[in-house]
Amino acid sequence: MLKQGALSRAFTWLESGPVTMITTKDGRKNNVFTISWTLVLDFTPRLAIVTGAWNHSFDNILKNKECVICVPGADLLETTVRVGSVSSTEVDKFKEFNLKTKIAALVQAPLLADCLACVECKLVDYVPAHNLLVFDGVKLWENSSRKEKRVAHAIGDGAFVLDGTVTTAYREIMADKVPAGSLRIK
Amino acid sequence: MLKQGALSRAFTWLESGPVTMITTKDGRKNNVFTISWTLVLDFTPRLAIVTGAWNHSFDNILKNKECVICVPGADLLETTVRVGSVSSTEVDKFKEFNLKTKIAALVQAPLLADCLACVECKLVDYVPAHNLLVFDGVKLWENSSRKEKRVAHAIGDGAFVLDGTVTTAYREIMADKVPAGSLRIK
Repeated sequence: MLKQGALSRAFTWLESGPVTMITTKDGRKNNVFTISWTLVLDFTPRLAIVTGAWNHSFDNILKNKECVICVPGADLLETTVRVGSVSSTEVDKFKEFNLKTKIAALVQAPLLADCLACVECKLVDYVPAHNLLVFDGVKLWENSSRKEKRVAHAIGDGAFVLDGTVTTAYREIMADKVPAGSLRIK
Repeated sequence: MLKQGALSRAFTWLESGPVTMITTKDGRKNNVFTISWTLVLDFTPRLAIVTGAWNHSFDNILKNKECVICVPGADLLETTVRVGSVSSTEVDKFKEFNLKTKIAALVQAPLLADCLACVECKLVDYVPAHNLLVFDGVKLWENSSRKEKRVAHAIGDGAFVLDGTVTTAYREIMADKVPAGSLRIK
């Protein structure tokens, strides 16, 4: 079940480079697409994604200035890939892929209830030269009840690597480089 | 041993979100720093990193318009963290951390010989509003002789997750979304 989490932890869900599903709303209906090309710009969190006019959701984001960036666990990887393989002009992806939604707090776009984390985002800049959409994360939701905690990372040619071992051995060395208390995995 | 690889595969080393070491040259001496906040902007490959004036190498990159983005394996994670924890104004990081270098083909900055991959990069844009340096990758080097193939991904608070299982189960669904033959792990 998605519960609100400390916004200071939101960047940790993105900096490891997971494949994500991003929701938007066009005023009437919700949309969702898949993207691996995301970026953390600041701990605050400031986040960015790469997309453009070829993506049906791009216009929604420019118009409504918001989205929700959702991080699915490895159990949702097939769904995530399939969401990225079709256009919402062809199918209702939420119905087709049985995507459960929840109402967000600060944006119109929905949360994806079965993801490990969802970050509600407000658009702060668009850099056309690089197809870059820059957001402030404004609310974090986390789902600690999912059994599958691993995320998936794209490694080219339709392949993915799933999370393996976690190490905290170097935390002391990095103590002055990252905000304390921002560890994602307990 | 680093060998030249197909440039079309370079983006695959970055899109999974590994922690990286980046080398620069200031005209006289080499420098190296650690960064997790990287981005793929295009398959060509166009790549970006987030850094700014607080980083000693930032001036080098703006001045010489180049760098090498290197992806260390998990066996170099402690080295990578330590490289990121000190300033080159205090120590010679190459000496201190026993970083072996190789001469690059198209840039002055060195390759890191023990990394899994190194991408020689030429600066194509700087977006000050977001501390974003945008590069074209111009040459890929890969090191297939390293026993440790896993990369490390930052997950906040000084913790990292290492690569686990690789899945190619969804390659067919994604066939029209990614360039064929770009799979990183054989």
